[in-house]
Amino acid sequence: MAKPKKQPRPKAETPKGFRDYFGAEVSQRAAMLRQIAGVYHRYGFDALESSAVETVEALGKFLPDVDRPNEGVFAWQEADETGNGDWLALRYDLTAPLARVYAQHRNDLPTPYRRYAMGPVWRNEKPGPGRFRQFYQCDADTVGAPSVAADAEICAMLADCLEEVGIPRGDYVVRVNNRKVLNGVLQIMEANVQPSWAEGETNSELRGFDIEAAVLRTMDKYDKVGAEGVRQLLGKGRLDESGAFIEGVGLAEDQISAVVDFLKSRSDSNENTLDNLWSVVAGRSEVGMTGVTELREISDLLLAQGYGPDRIVIDPSVVRGLGYYTGPVFEAELTFEILDEKGRKRQFGSVAGGGRYDDLVKRFTGQEVPATGVSIGVDRLLAALHAKGRMQSHDTGPVVVTVMDRERMADYQAMVGELRAAGIRAEVYLGNPKNFGNQLKYADKRNSPVAVIEGGDEKVRGVVQIKDLILGAQIAENATLEEWKERPSQFEVPRAQLVEKVREILGGQG
Amino acid sequence: MAKPKKQPRPKAETPKGFRDYFGAEVSQRAAMLRQIAGVYHRYGFDALESSAVETVEALGKFLPDVDRPNEGVFAWQEADETGNGDWLALRYDLTAPLARVYAQHRNDLPTPYRRYAMGPVWRNEKPGPGRFRQFYQCDADTVGAPSVAADAEICAMLADCLEEVGIPRGDYVVRVNNRKVLNGVLQIMEANVQPSWAEGETNSELRGFDIEAAVLRTMDKYDKVGAEGVRQLLGKGRLDESGAFIEGVGLAEDQISAVVDFLKSRSDSNENTLDNLWSVVAGRSEVGMTGVTELREISDLLLAQGYGPDRIVIDPSVVRGLGYYTGPVFEAELTFEILDEKGRKRQFGSVAGGGRYDDLVKRFTGQEVPATGVSIGVDRLLAALHAKGRMQSHDTGPVVVTVMDRERMADYQAMVGELRAAGIRAEVYLGNPKNFGNQLKYADKRNSPVAVIEGGDEKVRGVVQIKDLILGAQIAENATLEEWKERPSQFEVPRAQLVEKVREILGGQG
Repeated sequence: MAKPKKQPRPKAETPKGFRDYFGAEVSQRAAMLRQIAGVYHRYGFDALESSAVETVEALGKFLPDVDRPNEGVFAWQEADETGNGDWLALRYDLTAPLARVYAQHRNDLPTPYRRYAMGPVWRNEKPGPGRFRQFYQCDADTVGAPSVAADAEICAMLADCLEEVGIPRGDYVVRVNNRKVLNGVLQIMEANVQPSWAEGETNSELRGFDIEAAVLRTMDKYDKVGAEGVRQLLGKGRLDESGAFIEGVGLAEDQISAVVDFLKSRSDSNENTLDNLWSVVAGRSEVGMTGVTELREISDLLLAQGYGPDRIVIDPSVVRGLGYYTGPVFEAELTFEILDEKGRKRQFGSVAGGGRYDDLVKRFTGQEVPATGVSIGVDRLLAALHAKGRMQSHDTGPVVVTVMDRERMADYQAMVGELRAAGIRAEVYLGNPKNFGNQLKYADKRNSPVAVIEGGDEKVRGVVQIKDLILGAQIAENATLEEWKERPSQFEVPRAQLVEKVREILGGQG
Repeated sequence: MAKPKKQPRPKAETPKGFRDYFGAEVSQRAAMLRQIAGVYHRYGFDALESSAVETVEALGKFLPDVDRPNEGVFAWQEADETGNGDWLALRYDLTAPLARVYAQHRNDLPTPYRRYAMGPVWRNEKPGPGRFRQFYQCDADTVGAPSVAADAEICAMLADCLEEVGIPRGDYVVRVNNRKVLNGVLQIMEANVQPSWAEGETNSELRGFDIEAAVLRTMDKYDKVGAEGVRQLLGKGRLDESGAFIEGVGLAEDQISAVVDFLKSRSDSNENTLDNLWSVVAGRSEVGMTGVTELREISDLLLAQGYGPDRIVIDPSVVRGLGYYTGPVFEAELTFEILDEKGRKRQFGSVAGGGRYDDLVKRFTGQEVPATGVSIGVDRLLAALHAKGRMQSHDTGPVVVTVMDRERMADYQAMVGELRAAGIRAEVYLGNPKNFGNQLKYADKRNSPVAVIEGGDEKVRGVVQIKDLILGAQIAENATLEEWKERPSQFEVPRAQLVEKVREILGGQG
């Protein structure tokens, strides 16, 4: 009989852009999600877990901030009898599923509906260093509450979450803006369009809505070129540092002023910032005035609850995903410095963001439903805490009971049983016990604090050897011979005192 | 200009076979996973979270217990430049990814590698009532430990997990068997094949391995037809109740005896069961004797740690996924009765299972790596606790601070701020406050224990109204008019005592 052809062995690899998480990476993230869920819950939000898989139809064909068709998601077609089933896809965020859930269950859900959700989302993007195609989101949203009190609440909750996970007050700030103020500025500009400009005396590519895009692009350069630079770029144009001339947008002077005043409006106090914004839009744009009034309400509401300018900053430069949001937008930024990969100091930056979006449910029901929410980037927050040295890079391993005599496995199992009953993490070495050195190497690799040894001699004498591995490592690194003798890292105790002594050692490291 | 054609509205529905989980469903599952993770961790297991997406190549083309090609998983092809990228799929369990992870990272992982993992898995199966295509698994496995001490440990840990989540001792049993004992029985049969039988005097379809399958099928009928029925079915055949004659497998008498003695070997004590099994295989099958010896070791190890026959039962009828397992197999069964959908009493049955499988890593590396593990069906466990009335069907809602005067939103926000600072779940009503009845309906829908009311009058007098909604509901249901007057469910307290009084009411419900 011919031998069946051997299949080549499969490659043991994650797909490109995916990774595995081990030990402390998993438990620390779980702990952080639990802390954040605790805050969300205390604020009255209910848990929701929607399925990871949605129909492409329900999900919508676009990522919120990405202007392209069905790319960006992992999708496949169901095989039904006709071979032509629904297209399904993995969720790319937790907001699109919320819109579907709310539309589907709205008659059973309370109004307003406060929900939180946490879990992985998937993006079918080109993977890169530190860019993964599966990552965690941790969101809270209020659906059906039109009042800016809902936005203010989200900002307060965001601040509470950051403190709960270990970012102290002073190390973060929640920056708040309002899409309506920017809309007001754009409205002022358009209202002031001069006939000559409309007729084409300007940068030739700009017509209609393109003006908006050009203004937004120019505003984004504010940090780089300053107010005077923006002024030139919005007007006739500007000579850049290399000597090249950048053609301007061609706006008139009072249009330019509205934009530049808006950009310069952030001041040393929220009160002053709001006054500056008000003078940009007052009497010139209805929507702009509404926007500033809303910002003032948010600021007042937060102040009344003790969330002052040390935590909440009105900042007109916050422009996250403006196409998606319709009202207040907010962003949490960590203000402390860390060292980047190249050892240079830099600010850690944004770890969470959100805002008001009133159109998502409308896709399904035709009715506009007001909604506002926040998404916390848990993986970035964890990275921040690690960068600041506020988080251990590994778990403490278990106490390892070594196996000196494999016929007495039951004795060793009894020991770990007692340790576990006392709440102590413990295990018997279950590899090949022949080589004792391997057992200690294993304990080392596991980051074990203690190894327990009971050979035949100890058994007869009713004692066990306890090896303090952490003290041992410290002594091996630092101690003189004298100290080594004085502080033995291995000692003998009566078998009956096993749990007590191990607990003492572990307590000492608490 | 022609109006763009209107897109039809998308349907707000989960894909077939998927569902959403709300509130207590999510938080109770999270709490249970946390409890189980705590036990796994205490036993020395480390967390692992692999990606939800694997290459089809790494995953293998088969579900462990399902004998069919690439069906059963959700899979799609990556689009690369050539249009011919890797096939990717959602994981269908947590064991196949473990094999990939271990093969990929084995040089960095300790040996043995104890890991736990929890999360959703996906099966592309025909959905049915109560059958979902996404569900949770919660696994612990030890890779690289050949000793049955590893299997015994898993059984002890499984018992601890059940008690940790609220199944008291006496309400569950961990049943243990060994694939090797069954192999021994089959070996005895094949060794005794009689020439006449091999030449075709038996049931005509049975040749070679088909005998094994026929014997296994017949063994499965033991519960239904009893020992005598199996004896007939393995021999000449049997008249069933309807009077129809079922053709027998055609085994000889001493072959039949080996099988029937095996099936009848379960006794009132593990000791007796093991003795019975031993007499079936002793001197007749090497592998069978190894199997019984291993079972005895497991039983002894567990007994030494206090896991006696009230929790651990040696049971030859456990046959879970035998094709997949290579040694000890175990299954946790809840022994209490519940009422099924039709109100009939029935045992709840299996909630967890596992065993030893030594071949999974070999696919990748060519080396056989011993492994053993358990998977706990968290959703079934939750269902069991609900069926026994040991779990609330809903969370307690937040304290709702109602809005009597929308200009004083800051006052109300300050109240919830104080309540939250005291650890009390609380929120301001953020819907349209015009209709006060709607606010109380909302509190009712949220299952709120308390509503707080502060109108203009109360504000002036420095008081708030506190409405005990749970007491109110009880009174409305049961109280006489007298009692109603005596135990007012709504009362007035000084504003400064808000937190204290709310805490009293909540404490009273603890």
